[in-house]
Order: sequence, then C-alpha cells, then structure tokens
Amino acid sequence: MDIVHSPLHRGHTGHLELVAGAFLPAFEKPERADFVLEALRRAGLGPVRVPRAHDLKIAARVHDPAYLAFLARAHDMWLERGNSGPALPFIWPRPGLRADVPPRDIEGLLGHYSFDGGAPFVAGTWAAVRAAQDCALDAAAIVAGGARAAFSLARPPGHHAGPAFAGGYCYINNAAVAAEALLQAGAGRVAILDVDYHHGNGTQAIFEARADVLTVSIHADPRDEFPYFLGHADERGTGAGEGANLNLPLPLGTEWPAWADALATARGAIAAFGAEVMVVSLGVDTYEGDPISRFRLRTEDFARMGAGIAALGLGCVFVMEGGYAVVEIGDNVLGVLAGFEAG
Amino acid sequence: MDIVHSPLHRGHTGHLELVAGAFLPAFEKPERADFVLEALRRAGLGPVRVPRAHDLKIAARVHDPAYLAFLARAHDMWLERGNSGPALPFIWPRPGLRADVPPRDIEGLLGHYSFDGGAPFVAGTWAAVRAAQDCALDAAAIVAGGARAAFSLARPPGHHAGPAFAGGYCYINNAAVAAEALLQAGAGRVAILDVDYHHGNGTQAIFEARADVLTVSIHADPRDEFPYFLGHADERGTGAGEGANLNLPLPLGTEWPAWADALATARGAIAAFGAEVMVVSLGVDTYEGDPISRFRLRTEDFARMGAGIAALGLGCVFVMEGGYAVVEIGDNVLGVLAGFEAG
Repeated sequence: MDIVHSPLHRGHTGHLELVAGAFLPAFEKPERADFVLEALRRAGLGPVRVPRAHDLKIAARVHDPAYLAFLARAHDMWLERGNSGPALPFIWPRPGLRADVPPRDIEGLLGHYSFDGGAPFVAGTWAAVRAAQDCALDAAAIVAGGARAAFSLARPPGHHAGPAFAGGYCYINNAAVAAEALLQAGAGRVAILDVDYHHGNGTQAIFEARADVLTVSIHADPRDEFPYFLGHADERGTGAGEGANLNLPLPLGTEWPAWADALATARGAIAAFGAEVMVVSLGVDTYEGDPISRFRLRTEDFARMGAGIAALGLGCVFVMEGGYAVVEIGDNVLGVLAGFEAG
Repeated sequence: MDIVHSPLHRGHTGHLELVAGAFLPAFEKPERADFVLEALRRAGLGPVRVPRAHDLKIAARVHDPAYLAFLARAHDMWLERGNSGPALPFIWPRPGLRADVPPRDIEGLLGHYSFDGGAPFVAGTWAAVRAAQDCALDAAAIVAGGARAAFSLARPPGHHAGPAFAGGYCYINNAAVAAEALLQAGAGRVAILDVDYHHGNGTQAIFEARADVLTVSIHADPRDEFPYFLGHADERGTGAGEGANLNLPLPLGTEWPAWADALATARGAIAAFGAEVMVVSLGVDTYEGDPISRFRLRTEDFARMGAGIAALGLGCVFVMEGGYAVVEIGDNVLGVLAGFEAG
C-alpha cells in the first residue's frame, strides 16, 4: 500500500507537556514517525511518497476558517507578544465562562481555541500541521482513485482537534479532512473508525450533526481516561446526525478478546450505515507497553485488528494518530497494515 | 478596624504556575500576606484576630456541595493515584466537550472542577482554603454586629472561584461567602464591589441569576487580560438577577482619573440598588508596579480609592484578593483601609 509521508513533521518538536503535575518532554515526538517508517520500509509494505501541497479548502469544511487562520498565526503572535519558547494557553472557556467573544490577546486566544495544554506551538508547528493534512489528502486521493488502501504517516495527529479547537497533540483533524475529501471525490457515505486508545472527541464533534459521515470510536472509558469529557456510550449524534455516532468505551486493562468484540460491533454499525469507503484513525496506544495508556493489546493482536478491518471489504484510508511506545510503535502499525493487506 | 487573619494560609505554598509557556514559582505566595500584615501592624490599623472555625453551610449556599467535597479530597486523591507534587489538571471541559459527567479519575476531576492551571492542590491547600473562608465569615460577623468595617486578610483569594470551579489562585469564593453570611444575618440586599485588576468572574457566576446581591467589578478589559472569557460590559445578570451585575472593563494602562470615574459609576449603581451593606473584593494589582498586571495606579491612589468607597456610607467587609508586587502590597492595602476609615 502507498505510504504518504512528509519530513516537515520534524519541525514540530522540542516542547514539553504537563504529566501528573510536572512538565516532561512531550510523548508526541518526531521519533514516533521514524520508528514507523523504518518498520514499514523494512517490511517492504509499499512506496513512500511525499505529498503535494494542498490548500485549506477541504479543511475549512470541517474546521472554522477563523480557527485555521489562528493556527497559522499563533506562533508569530506569541513572539510578537514578547514571549519565547512554545506557545501554551493557561486558561480555557469552560461552562460558566463565555466562548463567544475571542480575546485580542494571544494568551487568551490560545485558550479560546483549545481544550488543554497539549497542543503547543513552536516555529515548525504550522508547517508540520499543513504537511499532515497534505498527507491525509493525498492518501484519500489514492483510495478515491481506486486503490484498496493508503496510509498517511504523519504527525501531529488529528483526532482530538474539533471544529474550532486544538488539544491532545492535535491541530487539524487529518481523519476528518480525509473523510471530507472522499465525500468531495464522490462517495455518498463515509465511515471513520477510530481505534486509538483515546476517544476521538474532535472527530465526533466535527461530524456529530451530519448524516453523511458515521463516526465510530473504540477507546478507554472517558470516566477513567483522557479526554474525560466526551466519548460516553450515550452520545449517538445530534440532529441530522442522530444515530451516526457510535462510542464503544472499554474498561482499563482491556485485552484483545474484549477489544475484538467491540470491533465486531463497530463493523456491524459501519455495514448497517452503508459506508462506501472508510477512514481509520490508527492509534496503536492500545499496546500493553504504551507509556501513557492502560489497555493490554499485544503486538500479534494488531495483525488481527487489520484483518478485522479488512473484513468490511471497503477501501480504506489509514491516518496515523497516537502510539507512544516508540520502539514497538513501528511493528504495531505494520501489524495493522499488513494484517489488512492479508485480510 | 478589626483584621481577621489565620496563619494556616502558610501551608498553601511551594507550587508553580504557567506563565508565558514556562513554569515559574507562583506569584500568589505566603509572603503576600506577611507584607500586608506588617504594614497594617506598623500603622496600628486595628487588632488582628484569629478566626474561629466555621462549617461549610454558608459556603454550600454559593458553591455546589459536590465541589466543596472535591476540594477537601483532591490532594488525597492525587496521592492515591500515585502522583506526587502539586495536583494540577491538564484538560478542561470547554464547549464541544461535556461538563455533565464527572470523571472518576482525579486527573479528569481536577479539570471538571476548574478553568485553568492556576489552582493547584498541595498538602496544606484545603486547610488554608477553610481558614480563608473562616476569616471572611468572622469579618462578615463583625460588620453584621455593627462595626463599620472589618478586613479579612487571608489567602488563597476567592473571586475567580465559581459555583463549581476553581481557578486563578481561587478555590472557595470568600467574598461570596461573606455576602451570603451578611444576608443570613439579616441584610436584605448586599453589594459586592470588586476592585481587583482582574474581573471577578467567579463572583459574577455565583450571583448572576440572583436579585439579592449586586455584583460590580472594575477591571482590565477581558479581551486583553485574564480571565479573558467573562467580564464584558454586556453581562448584566440573568433571570431574577437581570440588572444586578455591572462590569466596568477598562483599557490596559488605565491611571487613577479613569479608574476614579469607574468607581463613581459603581457607587451610583450600588446606591441605586439600595444595598444595605457591602463586601469589597480588595485586590491591589491595579498598582503600576504589579508584576503581572497592566494598570498604573500609584500608592497614593489607594487612599483615594478607600475614601471613594467610604463615600457610600455603608458597612463594609474587605476581603483580600490579588496584588503581587510583594514589597508594596502592604502599603497599598493599608492605603485603601486607612482611606476608608478617614473617609
């Protein structure tokens, strides 16, 4: 399968994140992509292509254009304010505060357009974010053109980014962009299956009121895990999107048999929806050795996951999301993709 | 005037805060109270009394009891989770996420009950928070008993704490507790005047739908300053509280003449409301030398502020809020209180 990858991700680096009350080097770092690329090359999974540059027209169908303009300007505004280092918010518009009046000050704007401190801006962030959506768009075009599958190997990831907010390492929702591109290319109904350990809250928020995209997420119960404030089983979509969102939260410590049951449920929903093509938000932080997650999938389970997805018989755009055990991340991603190809 | 002060504030210390993307020792630290106490003692403003211990019945009229129970347990839950150091949230329920399902995990609960990373929990936080509300309750009782004024010299401050959220150094809203205590003691209508540089968003959120408490805040325009997401001039109260909230946002760089004009407007509103007694949220971070604020009041202006408040002719509970230029904070607080007594 074609692999779309840009070296521009490398400029998004060097920042810290808040973990258990202390600032540590961010788990979402360039080495993640290196390990995956190395494993895929070693296995000869397919050619690695650099994406062409796309504009933001598709992205502007799933994100507020004012938000995209903010992403492009945030780091410059941070420097203009006299700050140095990574741009980070320090206050957020939770209920009881207002989200309808954007501040003028960059420190306020960072909070206005985010839900946590996990989406910092450094000098290379915007170029990496643009390149990641380019990878997703090229991968979508390859599948729209008739290929059975393609893999967007990019970072930063995207599934926590909502219509007008960054967070959880995510800025532009690459999976949402890929799904929108498939619709624009002629698909009538698209399914997004999110297999990352964390609920795809941004993807759900983007499509929850739409009937043309089914969003399904298998993830750790948000009562116990990030993103905590979305991903419950009772969220089934709103308005025209009623019934087009499915959350399958699982308990901490989940192993393959229970995860496989959830995948079977997801498959049933995707088939019933009548999806013509699908996008997989591919996080492998369900792995037992992941440093920030609490599921117990083993490396051999990821091939089963790929085969289970292939059983749907749909064209598939794989988009890289999380997975933080850097040494093993390559083998686990390879497992899913090779398992899909063999399935 | 009587000064109510407890040494228990001293246990709330040793934490860091996020400033311009870097973690620095918190500006809200025990020395602040020391400098104020020293200045008031030197001037012989009045006796310093240790408060008696109160229960949380009054606090539970202005805060969600589940929130108060969380404040009491947060640090223990943090330690039970295997963490050390100050307890800090790292994700918040902004719009697009849900605020109606409290997480089970302490890391999620910290975000569920806060709006920023500025209200950490250390071992001594809860005792300090309890003591601060005790100071406010004793000061309110002194004024309810007939004294012209009393001063609650306590920390942490309170005016950013809302019905069910901490933030901006604040946990229990001491000014709101004092106002509620004055109502319980027989006052029919109470006014809270917030002169801190930052908008009193928590106080507004607590009373915005109530007709018995007028909330007035003079502060830096939230488009430019913390708390960014509340404090605009168009917020006039809701439901039964319609008309009982007045925000007077002022531009960065404001000096005494413009500030005095806002105070005159505030006085008019308090008189028109028919307040029988008042609470002043006393922050002196409007001072030109404050390290985190951008107004330009001078030390001599604070006596004018006190006289301007006294002109209302109402009994007054002063409650300590912000002010971070530690060397000068004592003289500036003394200025307001002595100016009030002379006015």
